Amino acid sequence: MTSTDAPPPADLLAELHAALPEGVLTTEPATVEAYRRDWTESDTAGMPLGVVRAHRAEDVVVTLRWASAHGVPIVPRGAGSGLSGGSCAVDGCIVLSLERMRAIEIDPATRTAIVEPGALNAEVKQAAAEHGLWYPPDPSSFEICSIGGNIATNAGGLCCVKYGVTTDYVLGLDVVLADGTLVHLGGKRIKDVAGLSLLKLFVGSEGTLGVVTRAILRLVPARPPAATLVATFPTVAASARAVVAIGRHLRPSMLELMDNASINAVEDYQQMGLDRTAGALLLAQSDAPGAARTEEIELIRAACETEGAVECFVTDDPDEGELFAAARRAAFPAIEKLGSLMLEDVGVPIPLLPELLDGIAAIAEAHEVQIPVVAHAGDGNTHPIIVYPRGDEAARQRAAIAFGEVMQLAIRLGGTITGEHGVGRLKRVALADQLGPDVMALTQRVKAALDPQGILNPGAAI
Amino acid sequence: MTSTDAPPPADLLAELHAALPEGVLTTEPATVEAYRRDWTESDTAGMPLGVVRAHRAEDVVVTLRWASAHGVPIVPRGAGSGLSGGSCAVDGCIVLSLERMRAIEIDPATRTAIVEPGALNAEVKQAAAEHGLWYPPDPSSFEICSIGGNIATNAGGLCCVKYGVTTDYVLGLDVVLADGTLVHLGGKRIKDVAGLSLLKLFVGSEGTLGVVTRAILRLVPARPPAATLVATFPTVAASARAVVAIGRHLRPSMLELMDNASINAVEDYQQMGLDRTAGALLLAQSDAPGAARTEEIELIRAACETEGAVECFVTDDPDEGELFAAARRAAFPAIEKLGSLMLEDVGVPIPLLPELLDGIAAIAEAHEVQIPVVAHAGDGNTHPIIVYPRGDEAARQRAAIAFGEVMQLAIRLGGTITGEHGVGRLKRVALADQLGPDVMALTQRVKAALDPQGILNPGAAI
Repeated sequence: MTSTDAPPPADLLAELHAALPEGVLTTEPATVEAYRRDWTESDTAGMPLGVVRAHRAEDVVVTLRWASAHGVPIVPRGAGSGLSGGSCAVDGCIVLSLERMRAIEIDPATRTAIVEPGALNAEVKQAAAEHGLWYPPDPSSFEICSIGGNIATNAGGLCCVKYGVTTDYVLGLDVVLADGTLVHLGGKRIKDVAGLSLLKLFVGSEGTLGVVTRAILRLVPARPPAATLVATFPTVAASARAVVAIGRHLRPSMLELMDNASINAVEDYQQMGLDRTAGALLLAQSDAPGAARTEEIELIRAACETEGAVECFVTDDPDEGELFAAARRAAFPAIEKLGSLMLEDVGVPIPLLPELLDGIAAIAEAHEVQIPVVAHAGDGNTHPIIVYPRGDEAARQRAAIAFGEVMQLAIRLGGTITGEHGVGRLKRVALADQLGPDVMALTQRVKAALDPQGILNPGAAI
Repeated sequence: MTSTDAPPPADLLAELHAALPEGVLTTEPATVEAYRRDWTESDTAGMPLGVVRAHRAEDVVVTLRWASAHGVPIVPRGAGSGLSGGSCAVDGCIVLSLERMRAIEIDPATRTAIVEPGALNAEVKQAAAEHGLWYPPDPSSFEICSIGGNIATNAGGLCCVKYGVTTDYVLGLDVVLADGTLVHLGGKRIKDVAGLSLLKLFVGSEGTLGVVTRAILRLVPARPPAATLVATFPTVAASARAVVAIGRHLRPSMLELMDNASINAVEDYQQMGLDRTAGALLLAQSDAPGAARTEEIELIRAACETEGAVECFVTDDPDEGELFAAARRAAFPAIEKLGSLMLEDVGVPIPLLPELLDGIAAIAEAHEVQIPVVAHAGDGNTHPIIVYPRGDEAARQRAAIAFGEVMQLAIRLGGTITGEHGVGRLKRVALADQLGPDVMALTQRVKAALDPQGILNPGAAI
């Protein structure tokens, strides 16, 4: 249906209002305004017709049936903590929030969690922990991000260097398709190769192929406490060599990197006694069982020392280790003190981390912005954070140019423009540069097969 | 193009012959006959026009461009060790064999293997081992099955209870689409969420969406030696309770089950001193680092004893442990001594293993066939093996009925008709019963988007 033969929005909305339970659809201006953007700083977010806050899968079915009948765009939304603008509104859309669907049921016998999409990652972890079980994926935002958003972006985190990312833990999904059909994919069985891997296709599709209303997540036994190492290096290159060397012999449960600028930002924010002169800091953990965690952390120390670490600090005390992990997670708020931010999420093959960071330093210098870097180094996934003075429009424009150049650099190095945050609306301009025309065409064929009208999260991800 | 306006096959084949290097296409009858079937006992395999044995990706491109121009079906084929008939020919097809494309390159710095599809799983493992690295997926057929076939079926194995299945190790794929377009997906970066998860969609698609010509596989550090436990139980139910109990506390690196009939078949085949009166046998391994493997195997022993194990044997000696693992892998040849086989691959949520095995026993009795069961119990994935007297047509028909009933039983228990072998042509009749009409329709939409003419492995998988 084109806009010329569409009924006026007021009639349209009255029809949707009548089809949904009281209070599910709102057009109240302050509420609509609150749902226009996710955490991404965006001045281009559109104006929605209204916000649907679904209470149950049937509300999603009704909304999508109505949207496909009238060609109305739908922007699905979890907790709104996205960093790539994947949940920023477009004009004339319905924002479909899943935040009220947050039931969690743990089935200890099958070691699964049956979760509604609005449940927070931390809530799932907590519910699992009550049964001695663990849901590994741990984005830094785990206390405020939703499982639905995690599935939409195939979210990663700090422990995925050993334990994998969200898609590795999704056994089943209920998905409402563009036309309102509710399909059930997968289930509580662990291995299942019957039919196409549609389950995996929906994970990471950023709301462009369907809306998840329920997930069956795989849980694993609670893990042992971790031993922690902090090592400082004269250069990023030396630390990257250590990352490669460590990975040859074992799989640490955390392997994070901070460059000199992030070290100083964190040290300004909360005094940890970090070496402000270090070129790079590695933060590693081992959660191997029993005495093996000490053995592993000593192997990690040896690799760091061989590759030129200036100082290594090791602790078996989980609380002390958590202090350092918290310092690493505090890098964003610490760096936020320095100005306005544009947050990158580029990844490269691990041995190319030095080339990536050298290139980023050159980009920062060329455009007169700061770009401190924190990284999930064990996965080659980095978060360069472009900082510019608040309210300085010329600096914002230079930052935007630097943002684009960092993505192009990652592509040139055989990497990706996004390792875990998603493409959203912020990085869409660079996607074709990474994937090339043939993969883009293939993507469009899959999109057209599942959402022929293009109503699902238009302008995002693909 | 319909068959009425197609040129006669001889002209067609001459065109393909001219487009390919000498010796790549053959129509020699004995060779064609040899490529009509995979390991599946099939009397319905069709007659191919010819066999293309590709030497390089370009041969695949040329073949698919030609096939799509003329509407000729293509049946892709790796090592031909498939057990679901996924590589059995259809009339008038070209069998496209990848067995000659078997280059393997190990990149230790990124811990990846760049592999052509004809390379055997065991060859990849061996090449990785020369660099102190390991490619985990280990189907029982690992010495004779190809990586291309592993990717096509998303193959599992014995260690996937701890280490996951093929899809978890595929970082990149080169795929030739139905129209001959060669696309590159993923790469040597570990985390990448840019665009749709097309990579994961191709894994497990059994040659119905494209033909893989190269894979980038993730390797991990070589693992420590394993400790082994063999425990016997009076009943399958007791052993299944032990499986659930073990999984609450740790992740064994192997957790296999043999029922009474398989124990006796193996014991007949090679005398291991197994308890012929046991209702079930569990074979577990721990490859935890250092002293932890002994601690884990003792935890496993304790769980087995609590759940009623009659006897537990534990060894720290890797060679002795390998003897038991080899006995488990020998179950197929052992059972083959008993008659003709139809091999099942059904899976259920782990706590429902007793219901599944009880139901299978009832089906065996009702149809007067034997159905010994071996299982990757830790994943709930079982291989009931329907045995009937060789050459007895009436028994073969009863076995075929039992085969279908086992699949229906798995579906009723919330399980799957195939955990790791694939749907192929053997199980296609039951796929819609598992997936339901809406998921089947969705599947067809994806298939039509990628292969609008339906030339890729028609009649298989979906």
